[in-house]
Amino acid sequence: MTLRVAMIGYGFMGAAHSVGWRQAPHVFSLPDDIEMAVLVGRNAEAVADAAAQWGWAESATDWREVIARDDIDIVDIVTPGDSHAEIAIAALEAGKHVLCEKPLANTVEEAEAMADAAARAAARGVRSMVGFTYRRVPAVTFLRDLIAQGAVGRIAHVRAAYRQDWLVDPEMPLAWRLQKEHAGSGALGDIGAHIIDMTQFVTGLDVTAVSGVLDTIVKQRPLQGSGSGLSGTAADGVGEVTVDDVAIFTGRLSTGALVSFEATRFATGRKNDLSIEVSGDKGALRFDLEDLNTLWFYDRTAPETTQGFTRILVTEAQHPYVAAWWPAGHMLGYEHGFSHQVVDLVTAISEGADPHPSFAEGLSVQRVLAAVEESSQSDSGWVRVGAPVVAETSAG
Amino acid sequence: MTLRVAMIGYGFMGAAHSVGWRQAPHVFSLPDDIEMAVLVGRNAEAVADAAAQWGWAESATDWREVIARDDIDIVDIVTPGDSHAEIAIAALEAGKHVLCEKPLANTVEEAEAMADAAARAAARGVRSMVGFTYRRVPAVTFLRDLIAQGAVGRIAHVRAAYRQDWLVDPEMPLAWRLQKEHAGSGALGDIGAHIIDMTQFVTGLDVTAVSGVLDTIVKQRPLQGSGSGLSGTAADGVGEVTVDDVAIFTGRLSTGALVSFEATRFATGRKNDLSIEVSGDKGALRFDLEDLNTLWFYDRTAPETTQGFTRILVTEAQHPYVAAWWPAGHMLGYEHGFSHQVVDLVTAISEGADPHPSFAEGLSVQRVLAAVEESSQSDSGWVRVGAPVVAETSAG
Amino acid sequence: MTLRVAMIGYGFMGAAHSVGWRQAPHVFSLPDDIEMAVLVGRNAEAVADAAAQWGWAESATDWREVIARDDIDIVDIVTPGDSHAEIAIAALEAGKHVLCEKPLANTVEEAEAMADAAARAAARGVRSMVGFTYRRVPAVTFLRDLIAQGAVGRIAHVRAAYRQDWLVDPEMPLAWRLQKEHAGSGALGDIGAHIIDMTQFVTGLDVTAVSGVLDTIVKQRPLQGSGSGLSGTAADGVGEVTVDDVAIFTGRLSTGALVSFEATRFATGRKNDLSIEVSGDKGALRFDLEDLNTLWFYDRTAPETTQGFTRILVTEAQHPYVAAWWPAGHMLGYEHGFSHQVVDLVTAISEGADPHPSFAEGLSVQRVLAAVEESSQSDSGWVRVGAPVVAETSAG
Amino acid sequence: MTLRVAMIGYGFMGAAHSVGWRQAPHVFSLPDDIEMAVLVGRNAEAVADAAAQWGWAESATDWREVIARDDIDIVDIVTPGDSHAEIAIAALEAGKHVLCEKPLANTVEEAEAMADAAARAAARGVRSMVGFTYRRVPAVTFLRDLIAQGAVGRIAHVRAAYRQDWLVDPEMPLAWRLQKEHAGSGALGDIGAHIIDMTQFVTGLDVTAVSGVLDTIVKQRPLQGSGSGLSGTAADGVGEVTVDDVAIFTGRLSTGALVSFEATRFATGRKNDLSIEVSGDKGALRFDLEDLNTLWFYDRTAPETTQGFTRILVTEAQHPYVAAWWPAGHMLGYEHGFSHQVVDLVTAISEGADPHPSFAEGLSVQRVLAAVEESSQSDSGWVRVGAPVVAETSAG
Repeated sequence: MTLRVAMIGYGFMGAAHSVGWRQAPHVFSLPDDIEMAVLVGRNAEAVADAAAQWGWAESATDWREVIARDDIDIVDIVTPGDSHAEIAIAALEAGKHVLCEKPLANTVEEAEAMADAAARAAARGVRSMVGFTYRRVPAVTFLRDLIAQGAVGRIAHVRAAYRQDWLVDPEMPLAWRLQKEHAGSGALGDIGAHIIDMTQFVTGLDVTAVSGVLDTIVKQRPLQGSGSGLSGTAADGVGEVTVDDVAIFTGRLSTGALVSFEATRFATGRKNDLSIEVSGDKGALRFDLEDLNTLWFYDRTAPETTQGFTRILVTEAQHPYVAAWWPAGHMLGYEHGFSHQVVDLVTAISEGADPHPSFAEGLSVQRVLAAVEESSQSDSGWVRVGAPVVAETSAG
Repeated sequence: MTLRVAMIGYGFMGAAHSVGWRQAPHVFSLPDDIEMAVLVGRNAEAVADAAAQWGWAESATDWREVIARDDIDIVDIVTPGDSHAEIAIAALEAGKHVLCEKPLANTVEEAEAMADAAARAAARGVRSMVGFTYRRVPAVTFLRDLIAQGAVGRIAHVRAAYRQDWLVDPEMPLAWRLQKEHAGSGALGDIGAHIIDMTQFVTGLDVTAVSGVLDTIVKQRPLQGSGSGLSGTAADGVGEVTVDDVAIFTGRLSTGALVSFEATRFATGRKNDLSIEVSGDKGALRFDLEDLNTLWFYDRTAPETTQGFTRILVTEAQHPYVAAWWPAGHMLGYEHGFSHQVVDLVTAISEGADPHPSFAEGLSVQRVLAAVEESSQSDSGWVRVGAPVVAETSAG
Repeated sequence: MTLRVAMIGYGFMGAAHSVGWRQAPHVFSLPDDIEMAVLVGRNAEAVADAAAQWGWAESATDWREVIARDDIDIVDIVTPGDSHAEIAIAALEAGKHVLCEKPLANTVEEAEAMADAAARAAARGVRSMVGFTYRRVPAVTFLRDLIAQGAVGRIAHVRAAYRQDWLVDPEMPLAWRLQKEHAGSGALGDIGAHIIDMTQFVTGLDVTAVSGVLDTIVKQRPLQGSGSGLSGTAADGVGEVTVDDVAIFTGRLSTGALVSFEATRFATGRKNDLSIEVSGDKGALRFDLEDLNTLWFYDRTAPETTQGFTRILVTEAQHPYVAAWWPAGHMLGYEHGFSHQVVDLVTAISEGADPHPSFAEGLSVQRVLAAVEESSQSDSGWVRVGAPVVAETSAG
Repeated sequence: MTLRVAMIGYGFMGAAHSVGWRQAPHVFSLPDDIEMAVLVGRNAEAVADAAAQWGWAESATDWREVIARDDIDIVDIVTPGDSHAEIAIAALEAGKHVLCEKPLANTVEEAEAMADAAARAAARGVRSMVGFTYRRVPAVTFLRDLIAQGAVGRIAHVRAAYRQDWLVDPEMPLAWRLQKEHAGSGALGDIGAHIIDMTQFVTGLDVTAVSGVLDTIVKQRPLQGSGSGLSGTAADGVGEVTVDDVAIFTGRLSTGALVSFEATRFATGRKNDLSIEVSGDKGALRFDLEDLNTLWFYDRTAPETTQGFTRILVTEAQHPYVAAWWPAGHMLGYEHGFSHQVVDLVTAISEGADPHPSFAEGLSVQRVLAAVEESSQSDSGWVRVGAPVVAETSAG
């Protein structure tokens, strides 16, 4: 059969998702055909241009009408986070499978409603998935597999960071992404969400409590031009940055192990540097997104004199997703994860299985984010994830 | 207008070229539309399957018929090297633009005929290009640009290697690619060709003489199964490897600078490791295909105490080809070069310009390869490139 | 003149300090001669053996007698931390210059008394220095110099970690170093002290508040043999680990910038991995002790397309301390810092200047350590450094 | 007993050897005591200063007198190569154990005479050793051990390079080291000798034939000042460089495996970069002197999906020479090899064994150097090592 896709939204993520929909059917053997049917956006002309550029058959401006169409099977949501809940719930209720870009929502409440809707839909055979695409970088999937096979043994601790530097320049003008009323959150929700999800994904463990601090390093930025739509801006040509640009927090996993997290937009020279290191009593694994075809594995069960971190090129046919691409040693890039996402979603739909990450997993990330904000507002005291008030101390 | 493409051949390179034709129009703003019109191969069923998988509108079995069609504008040749000359010359004479996978041909004679045909075609506005795709890895293009801008100053020497390890296991069975009558050449023609082209491309200089040695490390391999079509195989279950699996040679550039070349299929642990380092009196540049988003630049004009190799992530919008893809720090992979190749070919066709690398450049690589073979057969004495007999010594 | 040295203590640090005293006079041009006069320890036979091995002229068992001798100019203290205060204060009062191994003391109170004694002694021309030797790795000294010259601009944040793995094996037996009554502290005081000092040293800024958590990953360990002198051990063959083996904390510098700190003995595969990265609006600098001849510098003022982290080999004659050693590209190792420490101490004595790090600097590290412990005991709330109770929140 | 040492020569190598003699007895448990007895040089005042700086008990100006003394046991020769033969043979005949810095001599004839003298001396219990100190970097010794244990299996080929950049600047003035009548040889003899010795040492195989080219990239350099003692210099302020500054050659090992060698003083940004990679059918090992505590090991017998180059920190107590130094993860540097050299020489003397590398091994390196020069003069044709004329081709 043919699965017809409607994508709502057409920013940077729209370009990336389009590559996934376009490439996956021609590189992998999918159980169903894919049709890039409709691209939806509010500006008719702009969305028509984007549809033509990216290869969508049609464009439309009203997502509700599109969702109501019988000839649409999958709804792919790449709009800003504040509209995720409404669109996703409507689509699920209309019986459409839903792929929703991360973060699942801007608030725990919305995410809860979405997870509920997804659970109800699943009972009717309708699938949903959150777009934490980095899970599908082959090296990350393989890292998770190795941990599941016991390669690191009992996990002692985890170190996860996502570091960028696009705010380093204090003269960079204010933008809507730096105002809370528009963006909802800063570094924490944008890139911190990725390292929370990746930690939970690769370890198979929940973050159960957090202690942390959010900070805004440059608190005022120049306004550029008039009519910028920025709220509450000062008469003197500068405006307030009202979201965090760095989040440093410590988490505790369900086993009691600690995780150090850092999300920052001020790490000069670090462009898109998500890194994770998992240490256990049998070994360690580490990954860095700026070197994404590589996985480092330290095997404590190897002979003592030849132990060391092994640099594994995750480009062999036996590695996850790789066989469909190129021979060993031929590098994959950023957008390949979007093809893998399509493969896994379409396969799950065809097999009648629930794909991961589920909306429930997206909700659990949202709860950790909320707990970090609460901790930061409470003198960095420990906050139990999911609990409405400061939990009893889980550390000491 | 729309450029309709016919691709002849459908092996590994067919998959890679298909990605280029499929992606380029949706990622870049091309001056013309692309239509993936016909895929051509000898086995009707297999080529039809490949066409369906890769997204070609039709398939066909007779390349001559396809070339004769009026509705084909570009012929993309990805067959084995021994058929390149016949197809390319016919296509050029039929007025089709030609993209021909490297190496241009299996012999200097064929390559000369092709270069002649290309020159004649160019006079009629018909374009031709050889598929040395690694030129279009952004880091390689940028390396060339930096050299052209004087970043390394006067070139003192170059070190270029292409190292793989797929022949390391002596128990790997014999295959047609290891027999001269089938494959034409071994490591030299397959991967040595890349480092010769890349050296000439980035330096802007010709290799004018060579001295080198070819070697076959494992000279006999087990035969696997019967009727394998391998020639002259022994009754005892083993057959002869008749191509080189390692080529070590030294070249001299037109300025007199030396180049050390090494092409090998026996570099254990090296999967697809093309590396080049250019040293000059103002600086040095190095690149490694297993880390393809990175360029290392040593600037001797920097203050003495802070000199060092700078690790440049070639993922900024200002770097070649990058702006059409992702934000800074988002990695590109192996197949992006095939999209860039399409962009440059289509742009050249549209602008009425000759793209590079030209068939003449492909011929010059072929002449270097032939000179290396001759040197190896002549006790590694120096051979002037292009000369039919051992040239007077250019080194001493 | 000749400076006669008495060293109290002869463990691992005794070996390292001995190299410094032995090498410095023969590699550098010191203003005074050095005489390795007396090695002091409680076990007469063992200390005599050590003195013979390491090249000390005499050995002795009573440090008080040695301090009282007229022919001793410098007292070098490498005993466990709980004896530092008594010996150092006595030596300073006896008019001896003192080099005291880090951490300055086991408690803030002791450290305060020592800093007071050092201040009184300085008024009489008697010098004192704490052995934070890593300050004198040439790459670290140079990193500090570059920051002082403005190379990173305004500091946005700092990331500092010291990671080892010698406790990873849960079967490693209990030892006195893992019991609080013997060792005083665990990872925090042992290796956390280094990254606190290094952060303050290279940035020139104080850590003014901290929030953090200490943890003990393996809480019980097997007892090995009887009569081990371990306290409170259980009848069932296992004993309690009563010090932290991981410390994760966030600090705030006097400018408001955040620092993420991590000290752990459970980072599988990390042997002695002290790393620091300082990010600012003009650039970034990072250093890793497992690659100690190297400094990475990102210069945001460089042309955009060639920005990147530059790998500086800090082995040029113009780099700190290097000219006395070997030509460029010849690596230095761990113990060279101990020679540099001797050079700087002896030079300061000769010039009548106070060397760094002073006892006051050692005290400031001690205060940060105490604040981290207090924060960990207070649900990780923020603790102002030097303040006796939880300070008002400095973050939020 | 006590071994009294006389060292002849006091340049850069004199400083390095002095560290070895000074440190080894205090770090290792040597079977005999060491006395740094006499430093010998032609300039009485300068050699007296050097003796005082480096800790030699006496100085002297006549090496013949020193060799004749009864109270000298070991003669350590660190003079320029043209005096090695005379001094070493005289010392051996006088019954002194001899440590001779590399290269063994400036000509094959001298080296042959020295090897003969060493063989005669060995029969009388007198030991000799050549100073190829890099053999005693722990990572190199361990690399050799791993190969001997079969870690790489059958060796397919070797890639060895020694790259420096101190001649890159064409304005660097002419010096005696760049004139053949003074220096004997250029990059080939100075640094090429190291990679030849290391290749033979780690593989346990001889280089039996070579083909190569020597080149002088900057052929004229400015003269600096008058009375420089440089020969044949031009009236116009520039003089001729008459030694090679780059040597590129291919060797064949006794098993038939090829080795690519490169020695250059023009590799911009490479300070002291000796690298070697040995590839075999079971694995590969590589080492780089600019990262000298590290060894990279690829194990083809590991599970396929986790194969990769393992970065081994050669700082564990079980690694060669390391136990006497510091705990795991504490780095060693350039000069540690000189202490190891002393340990091995003194141990051999004490045990009545012949240390390595022997003068015969030094001679074999000399023969390879001579063969490379001959090949370069013979159009890079293959030259059998040790044979007086161009040998029959060993490659084709």
